[in-house]
Amino acid sequence: MPAQRTRIKDLLSAENSGDVTGPVNVKGWVKTVRSSGGVAFVQINDGSTLADLQVVVGADCPDYSLVNGLTTGCSVSADGVLQDSLGRGQKFEIVAASLELIGGADPEEYPLQKKRHTLEFLRELAHLRPRTNTFGAVARVRNAMAFGIHKFFQERGFLYIQTPIITASDAEGAGAMFRATTLDLNNLPLAEGLVDNDADFFGRPAFLTVSGQLEAEIFAQAMSDVYTFGPTFRAENSNTSRHLAEFWMVEPEVAFCDLDGLAQLAEDFLRNLFSHVLETCPEDLAFFNRFYDKELVQTLEDIANSDFERMTYTEAVAALQASGESFEYPVEWGADLQSEHERYLTERKVGRPVIVTDYPSSIKAFYMRLNDDGETVRALDVLVPRIGEIIGGSQREERLDVLQRRMAEAGLDDAPYWWYLDLRRYGTAPHAGFGLGFERTVQFATGMQNIRDIIAFPRTPRNAEF
Amino acid sequence: MPAQRTRIKDLLSAENSGDVTGPVNVKGWVKTVRSSGGVAFVQINDGSTLADLQVVVGADCPDYSLVNGLTTGCSVSADGVLQDSLGRGQKFEIVAASLELIGGADPEEYPLQKKRHTLEFLRELAHLRPRTNTFGAVARVRNAMAFGIHKFFQERGFLYIQTPIITASDAEGAGAMFRATTLDLNNLPLAEGLVDNDADFFGRPAFLTVSGQLEAEIFAQAMSDVYTFGPTFRAENSNTSRHLAEFWMVEPEVAFCDLDGLAQLAEDFLRNLFSHVLETCPEDLAFFNRFYDKELVQTLEDIANSDFERMTYTEAVAALQASGESFEYPVEWGADLQSEHERYLTERKVGRPVIVTDYPSSIKAFYMRLNDDGETVRALDVLVPRIGEIIGGSQREERLDVLQRRMAEAGLDDAPYWWYLDLRRYGTAPHAGFGLGFERTVQFATGMQNIRDIIAFPRTPRNAEF
Repeated sequence: MPAQRTRIKDLLSAENSGDVTGPVNVKGWVKTVRSSGGVAFVQINDGSTLADLQVVVGADCPDYSLVNGLTTGCSVSADGVLQDSLGRGQKFEIVAASLELIGGADPEEYPLQKKRHTLEFLRELAHLRPRTNTFGAVARVRNAMAFGIHKFFQERGFLYIQTPIITASDAEGAGAMFRATTLDLNNLPLAEGLVDNDADFFGRPAFLTVSGQLEAEIFAQAMSDVYTFGPTFRAENSNTSRHLAEFWMVEPEVAFCDLDGLAQLAEDFLRNLFSHVLETCPEDLAFFNRFYDKELVQTLEDIANSDFERMTYTEAVAALQASGESFEYPVEWGADLQSEHERYLTERKVGRPVIVTDYPSSIKAFYMRLNDDGETVRALDVLVPRIGEIIGGSQREERLDVLQRRMAEAGLDDAPYWWYLDLRRYGTAPHAGFGLGFERTVQFATGMQNIRDIIAFPRTPRNAEF
Repeated sequence: MPAQRTRIKDLLSAENSGDVTGPVNVKGWVKTVRSSGGVAFVQINDGSTLADLQVVVGADCPDYSLVNGLTTGCSVSADGVLQDSLGRGQKFEIVAASLELIGGADPEEYPLQKKRHTLEFLRELAHLRPRTNTFGAVARVRNAMAFGIHKFFQERGFLYIQTPIITASDAEGAGAMFRATTLDLNNLPLAEGLVDNDADFFGRPAFLTVSGQLEAEIFAQAMSDVYTFGPTFRAENSNTSRHLAEFWMVEPEVAFCDLDGLAQLAEDFLRNLFSHVLETCPEDLAFFNRFYDKELVQTLEDIANSDFERMTYTEAVAALQASGESFEYPVEWGADLQSEHERYLTERKVGRPVIVTDYPSSIKAFYMRLNDDGETVRALDVLVPRIGEIIGGSQREERLDVLQRRMAEAGLDDAPYWWYLDLRRYGTAPHAGFGLGFERTVQFATGMQNIRDIIAFPRTPRNAEF
């Protein structure tokens, strides 16, 4: 009976080759093959770790004749014994007792040859790019961070809530949305000359969510500590290296929590998340540090080890105005901070992450709690070096009368928010929450330049392939 | 300085009241208030656990006068010392040193009064129902199962992959889909008399995914062991207690895995998942067992402790035909098994879960691996008592020529599947995966009759509220 497949990660993480007793079986895809003196060296990868496993196929192996047919991209199975490698570049290797070619990859046609490909080229091959070092590493780091997020909140007693994707409400009161419809666009039912929304699946127009916040507030007002982690959507025609039409967002929401408590949660969360990825993905991060961003690991370690600074928006504006810097965008109280301002604050003013609080109400959403000054709201942004804002959040307005006034000022109709207002009518409580864009955070943790290389199959204007 | 909020779950899980030293602070929502002999007993719940905490407010408490204003649904904060309860029904209670009313709930208006409400009534109040015992318990069980799923796969070295929600492909080759569009339905751009899809956001029609399987296969063919866990959609006009238009699905996909390996994974997964919920949610399950399904815990324990039976579809048909039962739907080779057949097999024929394999190709999807008999495919369904099918999966067709022939027979055009076929052109390998409907599984684990009570905000025909 053949040995069960062992993951390459598990083999390579052995202390000594002798710890792995008896023959093992590995399966994966061929990265490279070279022959020297009647011995073939086949590098195979199974995605479990960045490192390839070297399989040594000697002329005495009964399957040695297969070696000529092995090319990059083939899938293979090899049985053999783990032993210390005599060659450079790897600690262990397998000496093949048998070898099987499972699936070929015609070298005339297989698009991923040994040479380095551009990220742009690989974006067109999103079905094959996970087999490359870069995208394998992105997948592993992304996985580690996703699970690290769940672990952080679960260990702290937060409940994971799945808020709806299809919704009739819009958390931001703005932001272009996708409509989800079953209407036949070539045969639209009409009512009084306009589209008959009553004939649509939900009997009304429905959209893809831009945020689970409002629904998470519902659960916070019953379960106290909750978080969401799911896909969100923006139908904006943005073709940048930082925008996706479909991305995942993490949104904790905490009852009986004020802005100070939220700032502490955000700091604990980010430091824990970057510590977690440093601990669980050292090889992948070393790879990114080497090939994509020489300061990556240092930056992540700095964040994991820093106390975050706090300052108010008003203090931030004063610091920017006193900086003597010439910014592209003018700094004045009442205007939103631009990326250049955020980076100055975190990189040069304080030299570590900074949490800016209490922004002018005029530039923030209606649901943020109004301060007693009547001009600022209990909002926060967490700014980190190199990118600026990574988290945005707020204490929510829990006072019914103030919330209704703010909605009226924002030109919002009460009616669709009847349930949101009910939360303030019945057992209202201070509560607060933030949002973290998952892909932007993985982008930050990997040093990748383009967010389209962080998500498996990016959705952007004119692009929904795969 | 006031004590930090302590979760009621943490207080009630103490061995002895004396283990919790000093004053504590609890915050939550009032369930009931009763007074007796100048002492008020306030039951409060914070969602962390099913049990309420009894707060005893004596006449000597400086905030005793607040008690008259406390009604069901109010949010409160209480400081005091944990002590053994003299009354019946609880082990511990808090004797209030101080009490604060945070948010009122007018008893004339608050819809959730002390009396029992029907689930149908509560469905209209999905923003308040998490405050009830039943929906709080559903939220906790759902959370435990979601994290249990992640934990199971992470501990086994699977990578969590987020497959796209918006897609141009359709895994089932069938199934009604929602279109995601930014076109203005009242001002549709036309090209040659039909809707101009080129003007839509993605430059083509795009839809909400019915399954992440095909994209998960991409990642399995690079990372070996992966799983998805995310929302999926069906635009079917089904108004039943088992159907949602938006639901979450778990889909592992494993390279170098055949149907036997998949069956073992499915068995390990289900047994682990039900063990996990039994271990982590004993109080909530006891609640469901008491009020919703007297055999619930026994059923879950049986599954957690059973070896699952295996039989082929052909054997299953023979067993059904030999059963002497009169079924509503006739049993004949080539017809799909109905729920009544599945339940007979698992409940009466074998008395434990059963994995049925090798279904007729004519009733299964094109991507399932064809057996050498040319008539059956390497599909499996896992059947469990009380509901029948809980998991469906298959070994996938990894042979390019067979897959193309099966697609042609199914009337599918090759072109949109170019990348799916590429996986068979370059380093193809046997692989297999299954899908588990998350809500149906939570429904099973709670004994709830209607799936609309399992998801926070159900989406069904004509219903997208909240």
